[in-house]
Amino acid sequence: MDTKKIGRQTVRFSSPPSIAGYGSAVGQMEREGPLGQYFDFAGQDDTFGEKSWEKAETALQKKALNFALEKAGLQADQLDYIFAGDLLNQCIATSYSVRTQNVPFFGLYGACSTMAESLSLSAMLLDGGFGQTIAALTSSHFCSAERQYRNPLEYGGQKPPTAQWTATGSAAVILTQSGKGPFLTHVTTGKVTDKGITDANNMGAAMAPAAYSTLQAHFQDTGREPGFYDLIVTGDLGSLGKEIVTDFFRRDGIDLTKNYDDCGCLLFDPKTQDVHAGGSGCGCSAVVLAGYLLRQMEAGKLKNLLFCGTGALHSPTATMQGESIPGICHAVAITTEQKGGAQ
Amino acid sequence: MDTKKIGRQTVRFSSPPSIAGYGSAVGQMEREGPLGQYFDFAGQDDTFGEKSWEKAETALQKKALNFALEKAGLQADQLDYIFAGDLLNQCIATSYSVRTQNVPFFGLYGACSTMAESLSLSAMLLDGGFGQTIAALTSSHFCSAERQYRNPLEYGGQKPPTAQWTATGSAAVILTQSGKGPFLTHVTTGKVTDKGITDANNMGAAMAPAAYSTLQAHFQDTGREPGFYDLIVTGDLGSLGKEIVTDFFRRDGIDLTKNYDDCGCLLFDPKTQDVHAGGSGCGCSAVVLAGYLLRQMEAGKLKNLLFCGTGALHSPTATMQGESIPGICHAVAITTEQKGGAQ
Repeated sequence: MDTKKIGRQTVRFSSPPSIAGYGSAVGQMEREGPLGQYFDFAGQDDTFGEKSWEKAETALQKKALNFALEKAGLQADQLDYIFAGDLLNQCIATSYSVRTQNVPFFGLYGACSTMAESLSLSAMLLDGGFGQTIAALTSSHFCSAERQYRNPLEYGGQKPPTAQWTATGSAAVILTQSGKGPFLTHVTTGKVTDKGITDANNMGAAMAPAAYSTLQAHFQDTGREPGFYDLIVTGDLGSLGKEIVTDFFRRDGIDLTKNYDDCGCLLFDPKTQDVHAGGSGCGCSAVVLAGYLLRQMEAGKLKNLLFCGTGALHSPTATMQGESIPGICHAVAITTEQKGGAQ
Repeated sequence: MDTKKIGRQTVRFSSPPSIAGYGSAVGQMEREGPLGQYFDFAGQDDTFGEKSWEKAETALQKKALNFALEKAGLQADQLDYIFAGDLLNQCIATSYSVRTQNVPFFGLYGACSTMAESLSLSAMLLDGGFGQTIAALTSSHFCSAERQYRNPLEYGGQKPPTAQWTATGSAAVILTQSGKGPFLTHVTTGKVTDKGITDANNMGAAMAPAAYSTLQAHFQDTGREPGFYDLIVTGDLGSLGKEIVTDFFRRDGIDLTKNYDDCGCLLFDPKTQDVHAGGSGCGCSAVVLAGYLLRQMEAGKLKNLLFCGTGALHSPTATMQGESIPGICHAVAITTEQKGGAQ
């Protein structure tokens, strides 16, 4: 059987899946940030009418999926699968949003790489002939994440400047076997990479080596130069992690300063919003993609995008046991050019 | 494009992936149970030489994967992907075992359905042409699960008779695009099902409706009768959940008593081992499959197996907020007959 695998970590789709719809729902801080105008829904407060932060996160997921379905002109029960996950213990934001959908479901845990991971697997299943319509879904919520990973908000804990700010947001992307694009042409799947960073308040530094490793693999496997892409985005390394990735490539003689950015840097304005090193959380790269970037592609302002989700795969328990933070990064190549062009 | 999907929830592989190797590693209780002789490794105590229960669980995963690789005659870096997950918050048993493997990795969260979920996706990627060799891996550990979900062991908490006993064990199964079997022929992917059970000490009852729903879908989508299978196993509903599933089918006029069992009932002996309603945990159905059932297939004692992983997708936080327990079940059809026979 022909394999679609090119190189160690990358697959090229023989029939590139198409993005049929996308939806995003965010909280107050994200609405007030530089991308505020691009989201389908932006809350006035972060409860979204629910009684707990966890239920609020579930409510966000339902909203995001509904917007994506509406845009695609589909009902939930026309979906062949949902791939979804989130940051909460046992991924409960997801379980409780998906239980109302009546759709075959695969649960993922990829921390902040979840949107890239779910897009990767959705596209593989479509190109493999296992369905025609699949949704990729994820979320995070500042308040549920603070309570779980650090302290309840009421505690008033402080953070060092290297810490990131978990985005309150959810996004869904619906892929179809055929359509008019944008198309997913390649997926480069990450390996778990751990360079020994033990500071859970410096996740950008922990995840940057994974991003560098996956980007290198992508360029090597595809034969593409970084300049092939109008934009390469990681998500979410924040300002510090972004600098590390840029530095790593600079040492290799590659200048990423022209077409590389990070979703954690795009979502908030560091001058007016006190988010330390930038945004993070499964929802961060997801809403930047489904709110801003895919709209830029639709408007013809962006043709070739390399979307790289980065996740820190630790837990508070592991950190308390002195463990370092393993990182992962999955890259997805998206293009508006018909069926992904020649390459 | 031809779809491999038959019915709403099931896919049939055009080139059924083959099981090339499997490995299992368990703890003391599992060694003393009725299947004790079938595991590749069974510990004398449950620390496996590590300083924390979480690290012990990671050690188990590494052992299981190594046994599976050895049996398949492969090195880890020949794997195209690893699909893995576990029960711990942020799936850390998995992150820390996989970080040493140098293999592209997809993290899953499916609670006790993880082995079935990872087999499903591994088989889809192989049949879809995205690789040649993929490992499915999962684990659970009684002590890490007690501390996280209930109380630290030192607390000496008591459990009601409906509670289950989290198995200490890990298993890995390696699938290849071609081989001499056993073959995975069909996958039926579950929907999240929630019938309102709120008692986290009665997970069998919470998951039984999901098992019933997926089994029904499997029979309907494939046109197979339950009698087609030499054995249908769920994992892990325990004795109570098994009774509920049997009852549900009895009401439909279908007798499952002859060829249906549950991995939570097979792993321990309720007469001599104090495990209440039976085993549970990602490791339970995984080690029953990779320790016992696949050996039975290899020995020709079992030809057609329907392996149904069942997961309870709640968390202590959700339970404390009064939420009910969503369940899921994924079914995988495995056969020793060449390429899955005619159907």
